[in-house]
Amino acid sequence: MLKANEAATMDVAQIMSDMGGRARAAARPLAIASSDQKNKALLAMAEALEARVPEILAANEEDLERGRANVLSAALMDRLMLDEKRIAGIASGIRSIAALEDPVGSVIAEWERPNGLQIERVRTPLGVIGVIYESRPNVTADAGALCLKAGNAVILRGGSDSVDSSSAIHACLVEGLEAAGLPADAIQRVPVTDRAAVGEMLAGLQGNVDVIVPRGGRGLVERVKRDARVPVFAHLEGICHLYIDGSANLDMAREIAVNAKMRRTGICGAAETLLVDRAAAETHLVPILTALAEAGCAIRADNEVRKLYPQAATATEEDWRTEYLDAIISVRLVDGVGGAIEHIETYSSHHTEAIVAEEAHAVERFFNEIDSAILLHNASTQFADGGEFGMGAEIGIATGKMHARGPVGVEQLTSFKYRVRGNGQTRPS
Amino acid sequence: MLKANEAATMDVAQIMSDMGGRARAAARPLAIASSDQKNKALLAMAEALEARVPEILAANEEDLERGRANVLSAALMDRLMLDEKRIAGIASGIRSIAALEDPVGSVIAEWERPNGLQIERVRTPLGVIGVIYESRPNVTADAGALCLKAGNAVILRGGSDSVDSSSAIHACLVEGLEAAGLPADAIQRVPVTDRAAVGEMLAGLQGNVDVIVPRGGRGLVERVKRDARVPVFAHLEGICHLYIDGSANLDMAREIAVNAKMRRTGICGAAETLLVDRAAAETHLVPILTALAEAGCAIRADNEVRKLYPQAATATEEDWRTEYLDAIISVRLVDGVGGAIEHIETYSSHHTEAIVAEEAHAVERFFNEIDSAILLHNASTQFADGGEFGMGAEIGIATGKMHARGPVGVEQLTSFKYRVRGNGQTRPS
Repeated sequence: MLKANEAATMDVAQIMSDMGGRARAAARPLAIASSDQKNKALLAMAEALEARVPEILAANEEDLERGRANVLSAALMDRLMLDEKRIAGIASGIRSIAALEDPVGSVIAEWERPNGLQIERVRTPLGVIGVIYESRPNVTADAGALCLKAGNAVILRGGSDSVDSSSAIHACLVEGLEAAGLPADAIQRVPVTDRAAVGEMLAGLQGNVDVIVPRGGRGLVERVKRDARVPVFAHLEGICHLYIDGSANLDMAREIAVNAKMRRTGICGAAETLLVDRAAAETHLVPILTALAEAGCAIRADNEVRKLYPQAATATEEDWRTEYLDAIISVRLVDGVGGAIEHIETYSSHHTEAIVAEEAHAVERFFNEIDSAILLHNASTQFADGGEFGMGAEIGIATGKMHARGPVGVEQLTSFKYRVRGNGQTRPS
Repeated sequence: MLKANEAATMDVAQIMSDMGGRARAAARPLAIASSDQKNKALLAMAEALEARVPEILAANEEDLERGRANVLSAALMDRLMLDEKRIAGIASGIRSIAALEDPVGSVIAEWERPNGLQIERVRTPLGVIGVIYESRPNVTADAGALCLKAGNAVILRGGSDSVDSSSAIHACLVEGLEAAGLPADAIQRVPVTDRAAVGEMLAGLQGNVDVIVPRGGRGLVERVKRDARVPVFAHLEGICHLYIDGSANLDMAREIAVNAKMRRTGICGAAETLLVDRAAAETHLVPILTALAEAGCAIRADNEVRKLYPQAATATEEDWRTEYLDAIISVRLVDGVGGAIEHIETYSSHHTEAIVAEEAHAVERFFNEIDSAILLHNASTQFADGGEFGMGAEIGIATGKMHARGPVGVEQLTSFKYRVRGNGQTRPS
């Protein structure tokens, strides 16, 4: 591993280009590695992490010290901080990835043609994944392990704040790869903190990166989406809606609203806007807003809502377009499910939306006419998570419509190919 | 419809931007149109094509006349030419698309979580497809109909050679849309021949094009792949390989070789390189090459092959990288299936490869270790076609690994979303 100051004197473009070539070369043996071999590597990584706790904590202390000198915010310092428990959590996360079914080689579909050809569509790895992330050092392990499980090589580019912790964690991943006889280049970490390295990754490393996954704040995701010349799995924001239909059970609506907004306000599946059917304005609106306010939520509403609930602040047009990621919700009345669909199709970031309703027709319209990655009926938006979907660990949630949509887990990190079995068939002219 | 000379005085960027906006607006009603409504439109299109044969032929005569004045090649003139039979073929192609199952709304996967949440993954349209093609006027109808079936709006940009024919065919498609009460903007044709229009499409029309499909020669596909800022479904070339294992049945190998190379030499699934197991050099090589030569195929081989079959010309390094699309084949001996895999992974365009073998282990290695879209055992490479796969009409074949791979039919023109049904579930902290 190069020290940042040594590397700075080298040509970043050359370093990155070399990494791309090595990743591509590693991708081939990885693609045909057995499930046993990949799992052996993953378990060895978890063991290495546990065995090297003192080294990882010492490296983390270097990051924390630099963070204090740079006066990082308390939130950033908390993300950066590792302790024995967090390292154990990272190791256990890798063990859960080892326990997942291997997607590679699984048959997605099979059929026979009238001429006897037997066709199978089987999962294959995607190739080389580039992951660009900010300060959380655990992403190094999560992303590395998830890509390996799906048979992909990965190039990890973490933020400069966590460079020492990431480097120590990365050493454990390499130890696991080597213990299983897999190429160390399967999981590479960009050794330079120069931002030009990100630019090189976004340009695709001469065709040696197949997809980029950004993990971090809006600024990072925006830059990646704007500049990447290769496909990106990402969501810019989660402006998630909760719609309470006139037919909703009030108790259920109230519980779901409080959970969707307040369970954790900082995650992308947190509700940001509450839409209430005008038909339920007299019955449901005030009890739900009261429960939200009691849970500590600030309420910003249109004038119609404020007539019924004057404690609310006034919502502006900007509020409908805002992902608060905080204990704030915007509220408006709409004309039934049609009005909810109109609002959501206008303002949503197409991540996750939920409806609370007893009337089946309203649910079907909501499910059919809204084009978001995840739609829920009578359940909290906070279930928008690969683990909650039963998909295991996820590398992120995608709002794009190409290839992956919603939680991006091991299956979404694969492609497919066709295997066709014949007994001498030739095609007639 | 604007005449080219009128349009030339307008701002191409503005025209294209308006088309993008209208396509996006049309995509929403289209996404929720019923299968019946879409099929009604398709059948009305087919009827309109049959009813307007004289107008289409008159428009085609304009194109042909211009083609003669521009001294187009005989091949191009043939592609351009329409007659009553070809128009009937186009109409019948649209009727087959109407007969396909509607992919939109079909459930790809469903499962239940321990907490009772029922999760479905269902197909949705992709959105807006941009199709950029050359002189074949039938692509106007095929691509328009296929995109409509999958619930997508489409922007068609045909070559200037076929502008009048495409315009007449497009009028029939619009008639079909209107007969079914669907927005005419669902299938738009770029009304200007200015090449800047292609540049605007490749830039993505301000987020109003979700994927580009190029249909045409290498120059077009190369430009699209290089310049597109949105995903592309395409294959640049089909350098397809046929490998004859030592365990192959000779009669089968000979028939498959002649069919794979000679049935139609100009299609992307035609074999370009024949690899023969060194173990079969004495038994299989000469009979197969003799059959190919008798079928009219020119043979270019390495020196080892030429010792056994001196009639062959000498193959150079360049031959292994060449898609002849003609009655020429390159031939070399390899060390068993491992040697074949090495050659293919080095030179293939990852489109389609076939193995002829009786030995199961060789087949499994070929199927596992080669990363091409389509792999065949004991069958001709010329089956690489959406129709032959039972997928119905295709808009092309993709060699990329993101989203679509292999034949791109209606299913591949869709995305998906998750529908989650609960009964009041909230997520525990």
